[in-house]
Amino acid sequence: MTKAQEVAYDLREQIESGHLAGGAALPSESKMMSQYGYSRETIRAGVRLLVEEGLVVTGQGQGKYVREDYPPVVWNWTTLESRSRHATAVEGRTAGDQWASAIAENGNAPRQDITVSIVEPPAHVRECLELPADGLAVARKRVRYIDNRPYALADSYFPQELVTGTPLMEPRDVSAPGGVLASVGLVQAKYRDEISVRMPTRQEAALLALPAATPIAEHTRTGYDADGRPLRCMVTILPGDRHKILYEVSAD
Amino acid sequence: MTKAQEVAYDLREQIESGHLAGGAALPSESKMMSQYGYSRETIRAGVRLLVEEGLVVTGQGQGKYVREDYPPVVWNWTTLESRSRHATAVEGRTAGDQWASAIAENGNAPRQDITVSIVEPPAHVRECLELPADGLAVARKRVRYIDNRPYALADSYFPQELVTGTPLMEPRDVSAPGGVLASVGLVQAKYRDEISVRMPTRQEAALLALPAATPIAEHTRTGYDADGRPLRCMVTILPGDRHKILYEVSAD
Repeated sequence: MTKAQEVAYDLREQIESGHLAGGAALPSESKMMSQYGYSRETIRAGVRLLVEEGLVVTGQGQGKYVREDYPPVVWNWTTLESRSRHATAVEGRTAGDQWASAIAENGNAPRQDITVSIVEPPAHVRECLELPADGLAVARKRVRYIDNRPYALADSYFPQELVTGTPLMEPRDVSAPGGVLASVGLVQAKYRDEISVRMPTRQEAALLALPAATPIAEHTRTGYDADGRPLRCMVTILPGDRHKILYEVSAD
Repeated sequence: MTKAQEVAYDLREQIESGHLAGGAALPSESKMMSQYGYSRETIRAGVRLLVEEGLVVTGQGQGKYVREDYPPVVWNWTTLESRSRHATAVEGRTAGDQWASAIAENGNAPRQDITVSIVEPPAHVRECLELPADGLAVARKRVRYIDNRPYALADSYFPQELVTGTPLMEPRDVSAPGGVLASVGLVQAKYRDEISVRMPTRQEAALLALPAATPIAEHTRTGYDADGRPLRCMVTILPGDRHKILYEVSAD
């Protein structure tokens, strides 16, 4: 590790622990020079690493500030799509799909840009849906906004033969008790969720307006009917700077 | 986005899609110059970004290669600490704690370095354990190895008054049906898991031998007894380059 990286690591820890809050000015160069015992050049190189990461921004007149963060949201994946939660939302006449209901219940404004297409699904989606090599999927790709800020990408894939000719083919919110699939007579009984952590692709970074070097969680939920047949695979991209993922688990 | 960043994004996508496999040589500079239509200097700057991230390594004689990845592991957090899983492992005489059992069942060699101490817990752990401002916790901090490679940091915190004078205070594996707490008469009935995604701290990067700029998941599991009293808070650091997190969820 170089001295500049050491400075960057130290500052990053102060920022992530909240010791240096979003919007706060970094300590002055001369203060850091005496604190670390390094040259001005080394301190600048360390700060530059954080600027390249997007964690530190340059204000008017060259001052350096901690980036202001998105208000973080917590999504509870144990109940986000549960049948009981949705029944409640429908009785309460909350508009939109289950995700939108959950956000609105929290006092925030949900919005989604939806595009629908018939695609050859990515390899891991094909595997989750147990599709043959030439099987097609209907993709509902959404950019999900909260209070007009982009928070997540959520792409749902359905085996084509299950949903052709149904309202799922239309590019708009589908609200139905039990979720969108229930509107076409299919009921998801259980989910298998796989989460991996990586840096974003270029397209993900652009769609989500990510600061440089913001890691993301790729959350893949496969929904099955009571017989274990896969009905849907939803891939959600959750930026680390604006999300927490929550699960409730029984020990039995 | 600069041209160099564009080159870096493109190469990263080729690497993460598997088109460029671990250990493979990058395309030559002249090939990339004609492919992108950029100068040698720009191509080199793009590749340098990936070297700084640790995704690309420099071989003998300045050749550039894709980093070879750790064999990925999948941990199923729905069953990792379930009572039924552990009962089976104990009947099968598998040694070690529940984590070690799960790894050994998979045909791999688990190992943990354990240190035990009495600490003022970090703020979010204090909150999870509902400890008063001056309450102390017993911390069991582990570096978890699989086949002698560091895979995770797992720090368990227990309210001090629950475990003082018990085997949990000893710095070694504790194997007991129902988990380590059951050995002192405490039974976890449910867990609340919170997952966030971020860049590692300097200490985490060192303990896990992380390549530069490898993101991690911070997985915080709080265990409660049947009355909803918090018994344990376990913070696990899971590097994105060697982990997948799995959950099974019922829609009911």
